[in-house]
Amino acid sequence: MQRPDGRTKGAMRPVKITTDYTMYAEGSVLVEMGNTKVICTASVEEKVPPFLEGKGLGWVTAEYAMLPRATNTRKKRDIKSLKLDGRSSEIQRLIGRALRAVVDREALGERQITIDCDVIQADGGTRCASITGGFVALWLACKKLLADGVIERMPLTAQVAAVSVGIFEDEAVLDLNYAEDSHAIVDCNVVMTSKGEFIEVQGTGEGRPFTDTELRKLLGLGKRGCLTLCRKQAKVMGESL
Amino acid sequence: MQRPDGRTKGAMRPVKITTDYTMYAEGSVLVEMGNTKVICTASVEEKVPPFLEGKGLGWVTAEYAMLPRATNTRKKRDIKSLKLDGRSSEIQRLIGRALRAVVDREALGERQITIDCDVIQADGGTRCASITGGFVALWLACKKLLADGVIERMPLTAQVAAVSVGIFEDEAVLDLNYAEDSHAIVDCNVVMTSKGEFIEVQGTGEGRPFTDTELRKLLGLGKRGCLTLCRKQAKVMGESL
Amino acid sequence: MQRPDGRTKGAMRPVKITTDYTMYAEGSVLVEMGNTKVICTASVEEKVPPFLEGKGLGWVTAEYAMLPRATNTRKKRDIKSLKLDGRSSEIQRLIGRALRAVVDREALGERQITIDCDVIQADGGTRCASITGGFVALWLACKKLLADGVIERMPLTAQVAAVSVGIFEDEAVLDLNYAEDSHAIVDCNVVMTSKGEFIEVQGTGEGRPFTDTELRKLLGLGKRGCLTLCRKQAKVMGESL
Amino acid sequence: MQRPDGRTKGAMRPVKITTDYTMYAEGSVLVEMGNTKVICTASVEEKVPPFLEGKGLGWVTAEYAMLPRATNTRKKRDIKSLKLDGRSSEIQRLIGRALRAVVDREALGERQITIDCDVIQADGGTRCASITGGFVALWLACKKLLADGVIERMPLTAQVAAVSVGIFEDEAVLDLNYAEDSHAIVDCNVVMTSKGEFIEVQGTGEGRPFTDTELRKLLGLGKRGCLTLCRKQAKVMGESL
Amino acid sequence: MQRPDGRTKGAMRPVKITTDYTMYAEGSVLVEMGNTKVICTASVEEKVPPFLEGKGLGWVTAEYAMLPRATNTRKKRDIKSLKLDGRSSEIQRLIGRALRAVVDREALGERQITIDCDVIQADGGTRCASITGGFVALWLACKKLLADGVIERMPLTAQVAAVSVGIFEDEAVLDLNYAEDSHAIVDCNVVMTSKGEFIEVQGTGEGRPFTDTELRKLLGLGKRGCLTLCRKQAKVMGESL
Amino acid sequence: MQRPDGRTKGAMRPVKITTDYTMYAEGSVLVEMGNTKVICTASVEEKVPPFLEGKGLGWVTAEYAMLPRATNTRKKRDIKSLKLDGRSSEIQRLIGRALRAVVDREALGERQITIDCDVIQADGGTRCASITGGFVALWLACKKLLADGVIERMPLTAQVAAVSVGIFEDEAVLDLNYAEDSHAIVDCNVVMTSKGEFIEVQGTGEGRPFTDTELRKLLGLGKRGCLTLCRKQAKVMGESL
Repeated sequence: MQRPDGRTKGAMRPVKITTDYTMYAEGSVLVEMGNTKVICTASVEEKVPPFLEGKGLGWVTAEYAMLPRATNTRKKRDIKSLKLDGRSSEIQRLIGRALRAVVDREALGERQITIDCDVIQADGGTRCASITGGFVALWLACKKLLADGVIERMPLTAQVAAVSVGIFEDEAVLDLNYAEDSHAIVDCNVVMTSKGEFIEVQGTGEGRPFTDTELRKLLGLGKRGCLTLCRKQAKVMGESL
Repeated sequence: MQRPDGRTKGAMRPVKITTDYTMYAEGSVLVEMGNTKVICTASVEEKVPPFLEGKGLGWVTAEYAMLPRATNTRKKRDIKSLKLDGRSSEIQRLIGRALRAVVDREALGERQITIDCDVIQADGGTRCASITGGFVALWLACKKLLADGVIERMPLTAQVAAVSVGIFEDEAVLDLNYAEDSHAIVDCNVVMTSKGEFIEVQGTGEGRPFTDTELRKLLGLGKRGCLTLCRKQAKVMGESL
Repeated sequence: MQRPDGRTKGAMRPVKITTDYTMYAEGSVLVEMGNTKVICTASVEEKVPPFLEGKGLGWVTAEYAMLPRATNTRKKRDIKSLKLDGRSSEIQRLIGRALRAVVDREALGERQITIDCDVIQADGGTRCASITGGFVALWLACKKLLADGVIERMPLTAQVAAVSVGIFEDEAVLDLNYAEDSHAIVDCNVVMTSKGEFIEVQGTGEGRPFTDTELRKLLGLGKRGCLTLCRKQAKVMGESL
Repeated sequence: MQRPDGRTKGAMRPVKITTDYTMYAEGSVLVEMGNTKVICTASVEEKVPPFLEGKGLGWVTAEYAMLPRATNTRKKRDIKSLKLDGRSSEIQRLIGRALRAVVDREALGERQITIDCDVIQADGGTRCASITGGFVALWLACKKLLADGVIERMPLTAQVAAVSVGIFEDEAVLDLNYAEDSHAIVDCNVVMTSKGEFIEVQGTGEGRPFTDTELRKLLGLGKRGCLTLCRKQAKVMGESL
Repeated sequence: MQRPDGRTKGAMRPVKITTDYTMYAEGSVLVEMGNTKVICTASVEEKVPPFLEGKGLGWVTAEYAMLPRATNTRKKRDIKSLKLDGRSSEIQRLIGRALRAVVDREALGERQITIDCDVIQADGGTRCASITGGFVALWLACKKLLADGVIERMPLTAQVAAVSVGIFEDEAVLDLNYAEDSHAIVDCNVVMTSKGEFIEVQGTGEGRPFTDTELRKLLGLGKRGCLTLCRKQAKVMGESL
Repeated sequence: MQRPDGRTKGAMRPVKITTDYTMYAEGSVLVEMGNTKVICTASVEEKVPPFLEGKGLGWVTAEYAMLPRATNTRKKRDIKSLKLDGRSSEIQRLIGRALRAVVDREALGERQITIDCDVIQADGGTRCASITGGFVALWLACKKLLADGVIERMPLTAQVAAVSVGIFEDEAVLDLNYAEDSHAIVDCNVVMTSKGEFIEVQGTGEGRPFTDTELRKLLGLGKRGCLTLCRKQAKVMGESL
């Protein structure tokens, strides 16, 4: 088997995490996984959603969108059809769940951090890149809250990263680009902590069902990928959680 | 550990699949998993979405909704807020993917079957019940197309069923009801074919991350549950695929 | 003249009112008029719409919808077009007005009861069935409020029931099913109290205008139908108002 | 009993129908019932709704709206809340039904006439004024189609007019203004042809149920009012249908 | 060059400002510029938008819409497409800015005046007519607030009027009607105070770019037009600001 | 007077135009005016809006949006409120008009080019930057159409650039940043061709009306700015139009 861009089965694309990419957000990151580019910003607001008011707990939520021409053919903006795209809705719920899993909401206190993930260029794996980059933006915002004396201790209990794995031409491969993703027969997103534990596993048989053995192989590959990403995060963060 | 309703860890709630529950749809089922009740109907239309026109392939899609008082507190109808609920959006995408995985779209021909899953009463596991019941509604519609001579061969290649598993009070349990689901620390939905292969696996650490070992235990439990459900389906279908 | 289902001109279809059809709502009913089936639930909320705040008066409102496949051809969900169907809007306003007419809003106190009428199967007369069944759901909720000591006296001053009458093949007939309704030249919905007084009369010449004499005949038929329905209600209620 | 504006029980407010009120529409009317003022325009389009395509039949439909300050307190525009007001929806369905009842749709041919009723000033009875004025706008448009040789015979089979009647301070009164309407205990809209037959009757017990005798008295009053309005229409039309 | 309606290049169409055109609004005006007719109402509310709460400052805002048949072909209502027309959005922002420029918001106090401009008949220049007529409606509302003792001094510091100018068949002309406007190669709207100063200038090259010299000529023409309109306003106001 | 960032009155911020910023669009540019950063992409579609079908003419349109955290406080996405922001609507209409002014629509042929302007970071002048950068994206797409032999001659007749000018602390200044813009008493956007002619002039008295003399000074400053920007464009384009 030959991967379209010549990588070996277990190789990830080049990863680049640029911090402070824009100047207003409390945390701001440009994350690149090969040609996939996502701007992740973390915005702190001193209020929580109604269901949390008065409970002393914080909230982290995410929004995900693509610029109209992040993809090969132009995609109409959601506001044109007055509907949040179903795929975006599913993805932003995943990002929010993944990040909340490492948040000590008591330590965060009664405030909300919104992670905006805006895809500038999409070449596969945008939801995983959003989680990996979104985590760093969230960490930047938390560091700022700590530095400003707004909170007393770091509310993040571990790092989070995510990677896609899949079965492409009957082989398990890591970090699929769009050419692979659109022909993969099994597609799996793995979200892990820097401690090597799962936060979310989503495996889908796109072309055919899959076996226990295949799933195990994919999860192993995914684990390796996530831990590599956590090391990349730690490097730009200057610390690891 | 004591499950709230006294079941053993590996026990499912009583399952009941009533066919021909309503009279107009090409396929119609009431599926009950304990107190969870979902009406699933299959509607055949002699047209496909624009992206499939002229390709000779069929399409299966799903819509999911809850009656406002299917739950303990009344939930506003989507049309009041002019927004499809994010959770419903995520669920109906899952149901559609799960059912399409066993559809021979060439055999179905250029027509669309819509599976409507309307939850009348929700006590946990509504997305899984929708898949399990939705499959039978889909099968009924296909049988009708066959009987009417519209199609020549059964376009379904296997049965599909789904069940939730999770870690509740640190034990892996099968088929969580709402009381368990709302306190589960790990939540996992398993979608399988009657051949014992995975179609979709979605595991989420709600309260804490989870390990490889835990995931393996959950998947084993889920597999057993799905195969039991497939036997229940086969009984009302009078055949197994 | 021969009615499609063989009934005599003044005969109603079999009526069945099943209480406690679902388990969460304060009042829940499945009402069946022949093949027409509607789930009616009553939900109590301890707040009133803004225009009533602080006045010590309660409010009763209704919402009406049909499952997509309650009818012969699948009807798109409102949320797909982002618009409440005009017919549903008209019907739910009628149900609300009809039920409020027998509510002592002072006795109800500053709380709102929402009657949700969801049509599972439609074979003519769904708005009338919704009123007849919705009343019982409302009564169940009021009984519960009384039993729980939340209110001191029954806020319902009479029963309400509704039936459709119409001119089909030039004869006045009672309780039209869909086959009749779609060919009726005059269509009339009669809403009455158990005391034999009108709450609402809506007569429409669909195929041609109608005379005073025809209207009088229809109202007579409608009155008889409503009183029969009130007796059916009283039976399941165990009392009459 | 004293009516707020000193009229006798059976007296209507001054009626004024100004034709050709605006210059672009095929038919255009300003109708005034006392202080109630509605602009009614009829717009002809050479196409019909999808469900009528290719059947050789025409269609007449109506839209109803109020300027934000047609009433005592400013009403938000529908577009602000993204929802067609429920009351407007109910009213425009009534206007459409009422006018279609006198349309020979074969004579009209495969084209649609839209009657726009925009309330400039509302002092009770706006839906009735819309029907009465809307009919004249429709007639003007039909005359134009005839004069232009587009159609061969007048597609209107009779005139239509509407008036409100109600029980105010326990007396049946004709043509209620807002001061009366908002305190009426029974409210009834009567739509009739110039031949003295009913097209639509909508009676509602707002404050209490009503009896057969009361309804009969109201309908009698309404009939007289409608026939008077038909004579007013005939005067500006220069003919009667 | 010959203008379609025979006017000279610097001539305006007949202007008519009718005050108290409708009876409920605090200020109400029908403004006519030739065949262009706009109803402008001013509605006072004792609250301000959230961003102004507690600051002691008032707010003036505007909404603009056209009746569906104000134009030659029927225009769908915004609520049908669930979208505020882009042109209307642009225009109502201009009207609001223009009027706020002469409002002493401290003198107005913490209340909002909404200027509704509803075009009954459109023959070019509706946005300018809306500003010219909207100003008089605003002045009427302020006079009423003064007379009622709600405010202590007139919050309007000058009059505002607006007129369109443009290059039609290579000549600069004043107050274009629709026939001219739709063929103008340069289109310019000039908003001025009664003191002869600009509030807003919007010049657009529709058919070709334009030069400094052309712009200067257009602005001169616009100035003359605005001052004439201010005199017309002063006449119906009985005073000039 | 001292400008917040120390510039002289007639100095522009550093301008940077990066072509081929993203990889899928037919034309793609990152334009930076100081801290203002906008991604402009040009997408070619082989169809035109309905009103142009079959006329052999092309169309150029624009859409404008800001990332939620392009500004100092997070701005809700349009899809959340289901409404296109009024300001965005006004701006994207301006961008479309400005670019169409230099398009030979016959030379473009029956196809549409959509210019998407997505603001990544906003520090004043985003609409002007969008026009300046959007022109280069449009030119790149046209060059590609030419190179691919889809069109025969360059459909752009001149370059277009835009700059803001305003009166800040009673001095006319060029290219206002946000700190200046939010305190400017007169604000003016000037859109010009590379030939030194106006395409659009929008001057607004935000804090007070303005005189002829002031406007003339602002336009002179704007002209100089636009011509500088055209030279910058020509440099990255390698040619000037």
